[in-house]
Amino acid sequence: MNESIIDFQRRTRIGVVEAIWGEHKTIEQISEILKKYQLECETALVTRLTKEKGQKLLVEFPSAEFHEISGCLTLGEFKECTSSKEEVIILTGGTSDVGVASEAEIALNFHGIKTKLLIDVGVAGLHRLLDRIEEIKLSKVVIACAGMEGALPTVLAGLIPQPIIGLPISVGYGISGGGKTALEGMLASCAPGLVVVNIDNGYGAAMAAMRILST
Amino acid sequence: MNESIIDFQRRTRIGVVEAIWGEHKTIEQISEILKKYQLECETALVTRLTKEKGQKLLVEFPSAEFHEISGCLTLGEFKECTSSKEEVIILTGGTSDVGVASEAEIALNFHGIKTKLLIDVGVAGLHRLLDRIEEIKLSKVVIACAGMEGALPTVLAGLIPQPIIGLPISVGYGISGGGKTALEGMLASCAPGLVVVNIDNGYGAAMAAMRILST
Amino acid sequence: MNESIIDFQRRTRIGVVEAIWGEHKTIEQISEILKKYQLECETALVTRLTKEKGQKLLVEFPSAEFHEISGCLTLGEFKECTSSKEEVIILTGGTSDVGVASEAEIALNFHGIKTKLLIDVGVAGLHRLLDRIEEIKLSKVVIACAGMEGALPTVLAGLIPQPIIGLPISVGYGISGGGKTALEGMLASCAPGLVVVNIDNGYGAAMAAMRILST
Amino acid sequence: MNESIIDFQRRTRIGVVEAIWGEHKTIEQISEILKKYQLECETALVTRLTKEKGQKLLVEFPSAEFHEISGCLTLGEFKECTSSKEEVIILTGGTSDVGVASEAEIALNFHGIKTKLLIDVGVAGLHRLLDRIEEIKLSKVVIACAGMEGALPTVLAGLIPQPIIGLPISVGYGISGGGKTALEGMLASCAPGLVVVNIDNGYGAAMAAMRILST
Amino acid sequence: MNESIIDFQRRTRIGVVEAIWGEHKTIEQISEILKKYQLECETALVTRLTKEKGQKLLVEFPSAEFHEISGCLTLGEFKECTSSKEEVIILTGGTSDVGVASEAEIALNFHGIKTKLLIDVGVAGLHRLLDRIEEIKLSKVVIACAGMEGALPTVLAGLIPQPIIGLPISVGYGISGGGKTALEGMLASCAPGLVVVNIDNGYGAAMAAMRILST
Amino acid sequence: MNESIIDFQRRTRIGVVEAIWGEHKTIEQISEILKKYQLECETALVTRLTKEKGQKLLVEFPSAEFHEISGCLTLGEFKECTSSKEEVIILTGGTSDVGVASEAEIALNFHGIKTKLLIDVGVAGLHRLLDRIEEIKLSKVVIACAGMEGALPTVLAGLIPQPIIGLPISVGYGISGGGKTALEGMLASCAPGLVVVNIDNGYGAAMAAMRILST
Amino acid sequence: MNESIIDFQRRTRIGVVEAIWGEHKTIEQISEILKKYQLECETALVTRLTKEKGQKLLVEFPSAEFHEISGCLTLGEFKECTSSKEEVIILTGGTSDVGVASEAEIALNFHGIKTKLLIDVGVAGLHRLLDRIEEIKLSKVVIACAGMEGALPTVLAGLIPQPIIGLPISVGYGISGGGKTALEGMLASCAPGLVVVNIDNGYGAAMAAMRILST
Amino acid sequence: MNESIIDFQRRTRIGVVEAIWGEHKTIEQISEILKKYQLECETALVTRLTKEKGQKLLVEFPSAEFHEISGCLTLGEFKECTSSKEEVIILTGGTSDVGVASEAEIALNFHGIKTKLLIDVGVAGLHRLLDRIEEIKLSKVVIACAGMEGALPTVLAGLIPQPIIGLPISVGYGISGGGKTALEGMLASCAPGLVVVNIDNGYGAAMAAMRILST
Repeated sequence: MNESIIDFQRRTRIGVVEAIWGEHKTIEQISEILKKYQLECETALVTRLTKEKGQKLLVEFPSAEFHEISGCLTLGEFKECTSSKEEVIILTGGTSDVGVASEAEIALNFHGIKTKLLIDVGVAGLHRLLDRIEEIKLSKVVIACAGMEGALPTVLAGLIPQPIIGLPISVGYGISGGGKTALEGMLASCAPGLVVVNIDNGYGAAMAAMRILST
Repeated sequence: MNESIIDFQRRTRIGVVEAIWGEHKTIEQISEILKKYQLECETALVTRLTKEKGQKLLVEFPSAEFHEISGCLTLGEFKECTSSKEEVIILTGGTSDVGVASEAEIALNFHGIKTKLLIDVGVAGLHRLLDRIEEIKLSKVVIACAGMEGALPTVLAGLIPQPIIGLPISVGYGISGGGKTALEGMLASCAPGLVVVNIDNGYGAAMAAMRILST
Repeated sequence: MNESIIDFQRRTRIGVVEAIWGEHKTIEQISEILKKYQLECETALVTRLTKEKGQKLLVEFPSAEFHEISGCLTLGEFKECTSSKEEVIILTGGTSDVGVASEAEIALNFHGIKTKLLIDVGVAGLHRLLDRIEEIKLSKVVIACAGMEGALPTVLAGLIPQPIIGLPISVGYGISGGGKTALEGMLASCAPGLVVVNIDNGYGAAMAAMRILST
Repeated sequence: MNESIIDFQRRTRIGVVEAIWGEHKTIEQISEILKKYQLECETALVTRLTKEKGQKLLVEFPSAEFHEISGCLTLGEFKECTSSKEEVIILTGGTSDVGVASEAEIALNFHGIKTKLLIDVGVAGLHRLLDRIEEIKLSKVVIACAGMEGALPTVLAGLIPQPIIGLPISVGYGISGGGKTALEGMLASCAPGLVVVNIDNGYGAAMAAMRILST
Repeated sequence: MNESIIDFQRRTRIGVVEAIWGEHKTIEQISEILKKYQLECETALVTRLTKEKGQKLLVEFPSAEFHEISGCLTLGEFKECTSSKEEVIILTGGTSDVGVASEAEIALNFHGIKTKLLIDVGVAGLHRLLDRIEEIKLSKVVIACAGMEGALPTVLAGLIPQPIIGLPISVGYGISGGGKTALEGMLASCAPGLVVVNIDNGYGAAMAAMRILST
Repeated sequence: MNESIIDFQRRTRIGVVEAIWGEHKTIEQISEILKKYQLECETALVTRLTKEKGQKLLVEFPSAEFHEISGCLTLGEFKECTSSKEEVIILTGGTSDVGVASEAEIALNFHGIKTKLLIDVGVAGLHRLLDRIEEIKLSKVVIACAGMEGALPTVLAGLIPQPIIGLPISVGYGISGGGKTALEGMLASCAPGLVVVNIDNGYGAAMAAMRILST
Repeated sequence: MNESIIDFQRRTRIGVVEAIWGEHKTIEQISEILKKYQLECETALVTRLTKEKGQKLLVEFPSAEFHEISGCLTLGEFKECTSSKEEVIILTGGTSDVGVASEAEIALNFHGIKTKLLIDVGVAGLHRLLDRIEEIKLSKVVIACAGMEGALPTVLAGLIPQPIIGLPISVGYGISGGGKTALEGMLASCAPGLVVVNIDNGYGAAMAAMRILST
Repeated sequence: MNESIIDFQRRTRIGVVEAIWGEHKTIEQISEILKKYQLECETALVTRLTKEKGQKLLVEFPSAEFHEISGCLTLGEFKECTSSKEEVIILTGGTSDVGVASEAEIALNFHGIKTKLLIDVGVAGLHRLLDRIEEIKLSKVVIACAGMEGALPTVLAGLIPQPIIGLPISVGYGISGGGKTALEGMLASCAPGLVVVNIDNGYGAAMAAMRILST
């Protein structure tokens, strides 16, 4: 006798929609959960889907939207954005970080937060970051994505006073494969006040930004 | 020919006083740096000092204050606090976490931020946390300290909407010795939007809280 | 000249049927072992089979049963259950943990132990667990499955006096990928008397429960 | 403003006295907690104390008892033992494991459980274990302590049907230094139904045994 | 300008044929090396081949022999065995260890050493090992294969005086996945004089046995 | 609103063409970047491409060249080599190291540096290295590739005075799988002045050689 | 009620005296064990003693001998050596390895095996090893000690046909601190038939040599 | 019968004086080696000495010089420096890195290489590095020391074309304790051509610089 329990009070309690983590679930499991969301008239966000899984779910939920680069599926309308300018800037060290950065972007947009994504401003070509620093300073929160040695958020945290969320990315090979070096580099940062989330956790970084914006 | 360069622009640039990390420096090195701060009329915060080091520095800098529990030394006046209620609540899972929690508290107080410290609200006796949850919800930012398995910030992040900074503590033994299990547990958290700093990094958690408060 | 030796005395010696671990064996190896079991009129339990392997074995052993969610194959009758109520409650933090939880369930049912499976009572939505706590207290043994940070058994062990077997699950990504963070979090638990088995070892958790029930 | 909260409801809730973990606390912190216990007329158990700390506490609490081999201090009477024979047998692979084994023994005796300690029955001289196996089978629960490769509980779990709690010990050097190899060997055990606690966690193993005995 | 150099003096220098490690080489690379061996009239042993690679090489080298279970390919005659009884006994804890055990067996047989393989004598059913101990004592060298916790060679080394080569196997899951727990358990062994080779290194264990037999 | 920024000033600043790391990028991402290079009339080097990706890019960029062994794609002419003899010698311990060694070779040749590749001079057959030592001494820089235990650069660094760049290779299995043992062995080397790059980082070793040649 | 059991049958069973591992035992524990040995008229070998512990034991056992460099204490006569030439040669890469090498030497001498110790023949100055290679070839077994990258046994195993026991030493710093890099380098060796024991396990290497000599 | 062999040919062979690694040697061992150096009229460099060891050696070798900050002892004259300007610039991220940086400096000065040491130019205050970049560009080789996240050499390698040797320092705590995060961050660097040596290996970085200068 099995019972499964969904946390529909999460929005009330902590202000966010629960994301359905799609990676280790079967199509059947995801589908069953989405139907419960529909019954409750809740919007839903599924993360970490392969293209194949995403497309199969679209057949069953034609009103949903599949975002291929980020592997996210959204069901229901994006909340309307009330701010006129970007509240969260998302930076990436390289082009390979775009998938996870997009997961963060969609999760924020889905909750009505306006974002801007700046790609390829890694520290190996420092001028790219320095050239944009005034623009970055205008945001309220920065999410800084980096793989390999993960130095981007450290350099940034020495330059601007905003909250910076370090988002380590699992790109790299050898010693940096899997993103652990980037993660540990961000945690070990010599720059004061940098905070970090799990490797590739774009959704988590977005929710952290939302918590900050709500203060 | 050696030259040493202190970053006196940090306050202007990112709004915080540079902390002097005392652990791997000799008394002579710390003393030399503090004199430069005095010359610039800057207040200074030294962290991670043993009692012995702290007392020796007090002889040379009689106007300084040594905070034994946290191992911090402050030179110059604490900035006046303008807020009437606690902006940051610092929680600890156990009594052994108090040293690092105090480092966070002093770093915040030194910058004029009012704090409250709630000790021994670990998840093994959940009612202690649940009994105080309404009080905790009144703060703007929460710093949640925990050693061992580090579950406290995870449980908390499912209960309240504020920004929560997980601060893993190096108390424990065997598999939890050194704090890595607490750190990884916080990073792996199933609760959305929890952010994390390095093990025992009370100063870093405080500076992250300051960045958030300044938004 | 090769010889292979099966441990048919296990039931007499320690009261359990040996499970055939299917993951690193070829179809031919498993099939050869099952035939020996049939010759001895022993029931058999094969664990960690892919769907493909399971279906191929069914062709050869039509009287066997393949349990797809758990990847288990059983040969021979389930032992009759003599208890009127559930002796073992199996909890999971999320839907992704169901496969391993089912392995534990089948292994217990196969030996005649009545079980109940409660899915999705993870600590990020604590009320789901607290709402069911009286029901959970009625069982004799609890198996608590969790991936990611693995906090569920820790929270539970602070709430109820029964034996609790922590069963870490290899769901997660980044720092929690592979289940090691969940495992270490359970071992490091601040709650007294929690015991732990290997990651994804549903069969092992079930056999531990059986040892306890037999005292 | 600091507040500290002790969990005096633990005995009611889960049937055990909270142990005060002495390792990372100062004498002052432990002393303050013990006074609160005395006020509540609660017995108390402090674990992981150095000889020096233990003796200083005896000065302040002359009615307490310090158990040097295990590093435990008990305050208040041991609960009377009602059983006529040993309910828990504690085995050690070598003489170096005695300290942790004694912590388990004291924790059980303190709660009124009768125990027996069998030292030096490691698997390098297997006959020592085999000679005592009938005696071991008479107990209700076995705690098997081992450092180095930690094979003792695995061998035992193949021989007897009782619940066996593997207790890895931090004795060893090189690859086995710190007890992680023993821990992982126990978790990886090929014997069914072995459960494990954290390295050197004698108190935890004892509390697990108590949970089992209470079923 | 590239040059490749084969070590044809190895047999003279250290008495063994160089094995060609097939895993990270392309078919073309292996084929080119085998042709050089043929030109020198040397026999050759290729290890760690997939079935697919092995079969493709057989097309090009029809006189070669592919041993599927071990993934080995031999080119040229096996050296004649001069001994009347088995000099090396190879034991495995389980059926899943047979592939690597066979690599050791073929490597020894190829050099003219007579072997015996005893499968499934793991320590979870100790009687299986104890029943055969007199037979095992008749050999000159023992290779003991085990995955999971790897306790088999430790138990054996406490029972017999011969040289025992521990051969850890990469079978297992969770904490024992990849064979590292078995390896470390063997290195940490409390039994005196056990030596160890790399995980899955059947060829290496065989060559170590040959070095010992040649003394 | 996304923006991507390419670092075209790298050649001026540090004298090298930026390599496009192909492993974690989609065909579309690489293609878009290559077009920007073409617009700027820059030559381009893409590394770590599978054969499939390489061939698809050749369709779109018919003037490019795909180097299968190394997984590199070059767009634009190789810079003319002005030196009459080999400036950099690249050594490999085994045949399996050739892919990464070739990445280093192509990266150097592409910048106009003449190289020589010596394959299979590993330390298990030391005479192969000793026989060529005078020839190796004639080069200006040596790149020494090795997997498994990675001893080749250590032995070499004791024999010649040139700069030696240790390049660990991810060939091996068990404890040496993934190349970490080779990497750590090179870093731990008892030979003075050996420097190391990341596992499989042929391009990085080449760029280090270029930095040295430019002094 | 505690009981301790010494394995006095070890000499009969596997031909070696049990060593008493002194590191994690108190003076009292060691002393009690030695007295039992004296009662049985057994010789005894205690390993891994600090100078302080060794000297205290000498007071109580004046007929014992303390070997300071190796930290060993022997009680009773060394067995007479019957061989005219050295059967085991022990090599060290550096002077820092002498302590562990001496533990191996004393353990062998104590059992009547003649040894020779060659210090400082590490691979950074290869000629030192090559100059002595003919002499080394005359021994029956070689124990090769090395810290740091641990390449010495690998190089040696490519040069001579004897059994070689790699003995990793915990000298080094940074990445090689604790001896794990040396250990893993030896396990990963590209040279065929090298066997390895735990870090700093001089006694274990000696017992392995004895097992080999007894074949 | 023990023999020890010193490598006096090293200067001829690879152009450097062998450093005597002082950390794991006793005063007696170091003293014996220094006497052999004196007999050969060789200068000597001892590294990694505590102040206590250094001072004891000065008593025996009054002509030697002990450099307290770096823990180095030099015996014999420093080689005269022939260059008019600094050939090697050594940078440190913080004041805590000065000890290791000084080891590199003394090792270079001892061989007659002129150096400059720039302290506290870490990336958390980037302007400090950018302000000095033109001066740094004038050197032939740069040694960049950094602990914590180790980002300094990465940022530098994106700015200048010279050879840069990353020297990770074991300062930090929590995740950065021991220097492994700095090391791995440097190896994983996104900047091309950065090479790395072992943690705290100031001597090794110096010898690498010498190899480069000699090309």
